Amino acid sequence: MMIHTAAIDEAVEQLITTFAKTAAKRDKQGGTAYEERQLLRQSGLLYLFQDGDIPWQTVLRITRQLATVDSSLAHLFGYHYLCIATIELYGTQAHYERAITQGTQHQHFYGNAFNPLDTHVTATKQADGQWLLQGTKYFCSGASDADCLLVSAQKKDGSGLLMAVIPANRAGVHIHNDWDSFGQRQTDSGAVTFNDVSILPHECLALHTEEQHYFSTCRTHIAQTILLHVLLGTAEGAFQEAKSYTKTSARPWVTAHVNDATEDPYILQHYGTFFAKLQAADALLERAVQTLVTTLHKKHHVTEEDRGICSVAIATAKVQVVETTLHITSTMFQVMGARATNAQYNFDRFWRNVRTHTLHDPIDYKLRDLGQYALNDRYPTISSYS
Amino acid sequence: MMIHTAAIDEAVEQLITTFAKTAAKRDKQGGTAYEERQLLRQSGLLYLFQDGDIPWQTVLRITRQLATVDSSLAHLFGYHYLCIATIELYGTQAHYERAITQGTQHQHFYGNAFNPLDTHVTATKQADGQWLLQGTKYFCSGASDADCLLVSAQKKDGSGLLMAVIPANRAGVHIHNDWDSFGQRQTDSGAVTFNDVSILPHECLALHTEEQHYFSTCRTHIAQTILLHVLLGTAEGAFQEAKSYTKTSARPWVTAHVNDATEDPYILQHYGTFFAKLQAADALLERAVQTLVTTLHKKHHVTEEDRGICSVAIATAKVQVVETTLHITSTMFQVMGARATNAQYNFDRFWRNVRTHTLHDPIDYKLRDLGQYALNDRYPTISSYS
Amino acid sequence: MMIHTAAIDEAVEQLITTFAKTAAKRDKQGGTAYEERQLLRQSGLLYLFQDGDIPWQTVLRITRQLATVDSSLAHLFGYHYLCIATIELYGTQAHYERAITQGTQHQHFYGNAFNPLDTHVTATKQADGQWLLQGTKYFCSGASDADCLLVSAQKKDGSGLLMAVIPANRAGVHIHNDWDSFGQRQTDSGAVTFNDVSILPHECLALHTEEQHYFSTCRTHIAQTILLHVLLGTAEGAFQEAKSYTKTSARPWVTAHVNDATEDPYILQHYGTFFAKLQAADALLERAVQTLVTTLHKKHHVTEEDRGICSVAIATAKVQVVETTLHITSTMFQVMGARATNAQYNFDRFWRNVRTHTLHDPIDYKLRDLGQYALNDRYPTISSYS
Amino acid sequence: MMIHTAAIDEAVEQLITTFAKTAAKRDKQGGTAYEERQLLRQSGLLYLFQDGDIPWQTVLRITRQLATVDSSLAHLFGYHYLCIATIELYGTQAHYERAITQGTQHQHFYGNAFNPLDTHVTATKQADGQWLLQGTKYFCSGASDADCLLVSAQKKDGSGLLMAVIPANRAGVHIHNDWDSFGQRQTDSGAVTFNDVSILPHECLALHTEEQHYFSTCRTHIAQTILLHVLLGTAEGAFQEAKSYTKTSARPWVTAHVNDATEDPYILQHYGTFFAKLQAADALLERAVQTLVTTLHKKHHVTEEDRGICSVAIATAKVQVVETTLHITSTMFQVMGARATNAQYNFDRFWRNVRTHTLHDPIDYKLRDLGQYALNDRYPTISSYS
Repeated sequence: MMIHTAAIDEAVEQLITTFAKTAAKRDKQGGTAYEERQLLRQSGLLYLFQDGDIPWQTVLRITRQLATVDSSLAHLFGYHYLCIATIELYGTQAHYERAITQGTQHQHFYGNAFNPLDTHVTATKQADGQWLLQGTKYFCSGASDADCLLVSAQKKDGSGLLMAVIPANRAGVHIHNDWDSFGQRQTDSGAVTFNDVSILPHECLALHTEEQHYFSTCRTHIAQTILLHVLLGTAEGAFQEAKSYTKTSARPWVTAHVNDATEDPYILQHYGTFFAKLQAADALLERAVQTLVTTLHKKHHVTEEDRGICSVAIATAKVQVVETTLHITSTMFQVMGARATNAQYNFDRFWRNVRTHTLHDPIDYKLRDLGQYALNDRYPTISSYS
Repeated sequence: MMIHTAAIDEAVEQLITTFAKTAAKRDKQGGTAYEERQLLRQSGLLYLFQDGDIPWQTVLRITRQLATVDSSLAHLFGYHYLCIATIELYGTQAHYERAITQGTQHQHFYGNAFNPLDTHVTATKQADGQWLLQGTKYFCSGASDADCLLVSAQKKDGSGLLMAVIPANRAGVHIHNDWDSFGQRQTDSGAVTFNDVSILPHECLALHTEEQHYFSTCRTHIAQTILLHVLLGTAEGAFQEAKSYTKTSARPWVTAHVNDATEDPYILQHYGTFFAKLQAADALLERAVQTLVTTLHKKHHVTEEDRGICSVAIATAKVQVVETTLHITSTMFQVMGARATNAQYNFDRFWRNVRTHTLHDPIDYKLRDLGQYALNDRYPTISSYS
Repeated sequence: MMIHTAAIDEAVEQLITTFAKTAAKRDKQGGTAYEERQLLRQSGLLYLFQDGDIPWQTVLRITRQLATVDSSLAHLFGYHYLCIATIELYGTQAHYERAITQGTQHQHFYGNAFNPLDTHVTATKQADGQWLLQGTKYFCSGASDADCLLVSAQKKDGSGLLMAVIPANRAGVHIHNDWDSFGQRQTDSGAVTFNDVSILPHECLALHTEEQHYFSTCRTHIAQTILLHVLLGTAEGAFQEAKSYTKTSARPWVTAHVNDATEDPYILQHYGTFFAKLQAADALLERAVQTLVTTLHKKHHVTEEDRGICSVAIATAKVQVVETTLHITSTMFQVMGARATNAQYNFDRFWRNVRTHTLHDPIDYKLRDLGQYALNDRYPTISSYS
Repeated sequence: MMIHTAAIDEAVEQLITTFAKTAAKRDKQGGTAYEERQLLRQSGLLYLFQDGDIPWQTVLRITRQLATVDSSLAHLFGYHYLCIATIELYGTQAHYERAITQGTQHQHFYGNAFNPLDTHVTATKQADGQWLLQGTKYFCSGASDADCLLVSAQKKDGSGLLMAVIPANRAGVHIHNDWDSFGQRQTDSGAVTFNDVSILPHECLALHTEEQHYFSTCRTHIAQTILLHVLLGTAEGAFQEAKSYTKTSARPWVTAHVNDATEDPYILQHYGTFFAKLQAADALLERAVQTLVTTLHKKHHVTEEDRGICSVAIATAKVQVVETTLHITSTMFQVMGARATNAQYNFDRFWRNVRTHTLHDPIDYKLRDLGQYALNDRYPTISSYS
């Protein structure tokens, strides 16, 4: 079900206004944002499709807009689409269509128990063709309060990875609600334990065949691009808060000899730097999104080169986005002054969110990947992070 | 009362061990660290004097050591000495001797209601020679649970500043316990309200005469140097935590092709950078302390040039210390990885403490001051911050 | 006369190949590159027009391509078009058409004696309507060996600026050939002295009327954008030289334990950084060019807002381009090693060219301009540099 | 022969004044500074000894002072002492005493053909006990116009390295005078070819025995420390030139709204940054020198730990010195403006000298060494560079 652009904008605007009111408070609470997740379901924004495709430019734009006020909910929103995209990338057309049809009908919110670096969940094939899952996954973003879960497990018979989509209330699934990091506090990225959880044959994704290998592994590119929109949106939110504060509450320094903090030469320099960095991040991210959309549009015809070029574009954007967001969320205090550290504002959450979110995979290795490309003309190794 | 070096070291060691156990937890609680303040009183470390002088090298070293585990208590410890030093700088010899004698006897813990940028407390002279204080001061570090308060107020008759030392339980003094910033959370730097608070004549410091002007205004240098020790100690504590974590808990990145995170070329690069920055900060701070000690030793004979050179040395150290501490407390996560953001460690407190503490006065203006000195051979303007 | 894209590419390719052979040597010689300027004339590239308009995207692309091997000639090429554009911006349609017609016919190479910060040339009106020019201009890029000169002078009657286009061999024009900087050594940016030089009435540009004010002052934007293409092209040339050297001549460091310098983790990191910076510069410059082209296309209808947005886009690109080019041209030696400093390569010319070229106007004030826009929503002041 | 401090200061002052007059011109010429080398011989500064020891603090101070005006001659001066020190480190007491006695008498200027990374010179033992040298060494600083050469060669019998001191005019020694880099242009660091050059037994240094291993390999520390003094002196010279230029010739930027460039907030910021960086470099270098002097003073009793601590102190200083000198010599133009690029000043030579001199060994590996120490408590590997 497609909703009109104006309707989308209005829905996003409403959510932002609502989320903004409680974002600082909810950051301190942590835990699951049940009410806000419900508002996301009701907004219709979870099921935007265009001729059966996810309209990535729209979805990513919304992710970034949500992140300006609440980077946790933005993350959950983006990862919901990542889960659905995974069904197309690794499943059959039937899997994908069923997911969209049922999801649209019930506004299913997707979460994951899929962390690719975590190999402690095993799948054992039963006589009846079902699989039995056993073990615990960590960093399961969006699992709490999810309707459907994207799961992965190591097949006991050594034949590789099992991927499946199941109802989150399937017997034996235990969602711990134990996410407690100093940042991205309402992303519900806690542990999920599987105690003899049955997976029905039709719930298993087919995994990609060799021919669609490069298309399927673009899942990484989608995940990374979502993260970049969450990050950049967070920094843009921080910038807006700082700007508003400087204009209304900051005081000129005693030896600055200016009438207003907004005319301080060094404060202007900081804002100029913020702006230039944000623009560079935006320009590179725009290119990355264009490359991603073009690449995904080729579906099973994606080549090694297509995937590689896309990987490079995203890594390039990531270097700039990470540097920019860390800089702004820490330096913003220098254009506001000591009083802006008051807990009532909770302005440190921007840095905490960004700092947590930029550790997903090391930026040092993004630079190395780009170096391999720039110097040795090699594409990044295909992995869950590049 | 002087205690021996070995005894000092042992006392400090004990406090550090004790404070470390609860520092992360107390950071989350905020409020006043009553028990820990009491331990500081009992340690004897609040009254180290050498021939009537504050042994600054020792006091500053302790401040820095305490800050490695608890930058709030380090701040309170250092500022206690700042208050007592203020009595020497602005009061008579009698004021100073009485403060030391009584303080040593009762282990008085000093706090302040002195914030020089805050001019809302007024002093009105009464017929009997007493002054009456009215109004509210903000950023009164250490006021909660203090035994004695250093206060300042604007004289209503326009004759300038009143400075005095009074018992903290003087009638009319209301300490709000309302400090609630995201950093330095147990520095009790909240507001203090004065409702018709009487100040007796002998409690008023004489203020400096013209001849001791340069000596008295070295109070700024003491305050700045204490802050620098708190900051550098905090970064050193962060460095130690990071090192310990990297060695025991960090995992090599999937494409790093090293056996252990401690052999990762980029992690080594980060540690090399941390080390070089800490060494530069330490070397410049050592020079600043030497200059400060030499300057203070001259007492009323401090010249404009002495004060200026000292101001430059401290500002130079500050530039390096601030840059170093912000860098390490934010970048430390890149040598630990995503799991180090878990709230159980509360590692973000290092950045929160440093970020809060480095906004006291803008580093941009320290650089301008140094530029004025380097290019135009001008000493920094005499102020509460330079 | 428009020439086909393929023909343009081929012509550029030929020039680059030829210029590259002698660029290092000519840098050491300095002075005027007579032969190379003649090749530019013969290439037909000096008169590319599309429906009477300068095809800026093509012209700027060529400027950047030329700069990869010879940033002086790239500068002269771009400024030639700047001079012709100035005729459209400040002259009548007749001025512009005559310049194109005659220029196309004779392949006139334009140079300038126009430096807006230099006010030492005066213009005195004669009885017969002619003007007489007197005085010396500095930084007259491309004046040597020019066929036509764009000149400016202060009218003696106080009525402002006289702008005109005259043949370079006009009696009384003395071109000093005295440009001798350590960078951009063949840009012929020396002094031009006017000894009673006559300017005929029809040679005087009308200056812009009030209604075309915003269009005319976009001359600044064109000049800045040309400079940015020269700079970025220079850095791209430096990058290519470094890459080629690293792959063929660099040696792994003794303690690096890698088989080839191209696998050194820190060398890869440097290349990753170079690449990310170049991409950010490219992306922002692309945006700036798009904005410029859109703006110029509006001609006399350019509004204050159009001009302001364009100014901001160019300043943003400039911040990134300047930082990037200084970084790469200095750091490139760290991926090549000590032997790359051998004078035979003359690799230091990249830094010398970029360093000279980035001082045109201070980057610090670009940041302040961006700060004014980002914080206070003000466009940069209209000037010859913003 | 020891000369008095005041006499030393006067001699240095005279040399600096003389060298400064022609330094810019000689940089352009390159080649050997015969006259200036002769002045160094006549100054008596080549043979400062204190109880038979090289007074390193004095020698290094002079090196740094000379480098403020001429980093090539500073390098030659410092390396002369390095050669003599090598005789103590690797030779017998008799070798060392003879070198000092004869050197003092004839004011022998030492140069080297010793480059440890270059293994193309071989030594073959003759029946009469002499060795015959064959091959070419590169990067032989100070070889031209030297009186004595420190040489190294690979023994053909595979028994390791031959080290010797020979007269520079020994038959078969061909000094190419072919040094031609863009920086440090008068360091005579060209190639030296040995055609059947005889080395007499008593000219061969004994090489260090196992017991003096750690002392001997401190040669590296001396070499590195000399380089650091050359570098820092160069940056200090650049700073002084910039300061003088800003005060006398720089113009305030058109939109700066200040009366003088010396009051521009951003120019002040740059000077503040230069100053802080120089101070950090100075403080760390002072520590390194202290450690070096203490270490060398232990002579054969130097332990692995002594050597390691010294290596770390020098590497730490190097990181700061290299970063500082590259920053200042490139950024100095931003506080002077475009006219300072005029070739008459030859201000780019500061960057060219520093850039050339900082490639000796990669700074990236200094950081890795410091990382190994900071994280893994390992001293740098003993080598010719660490």
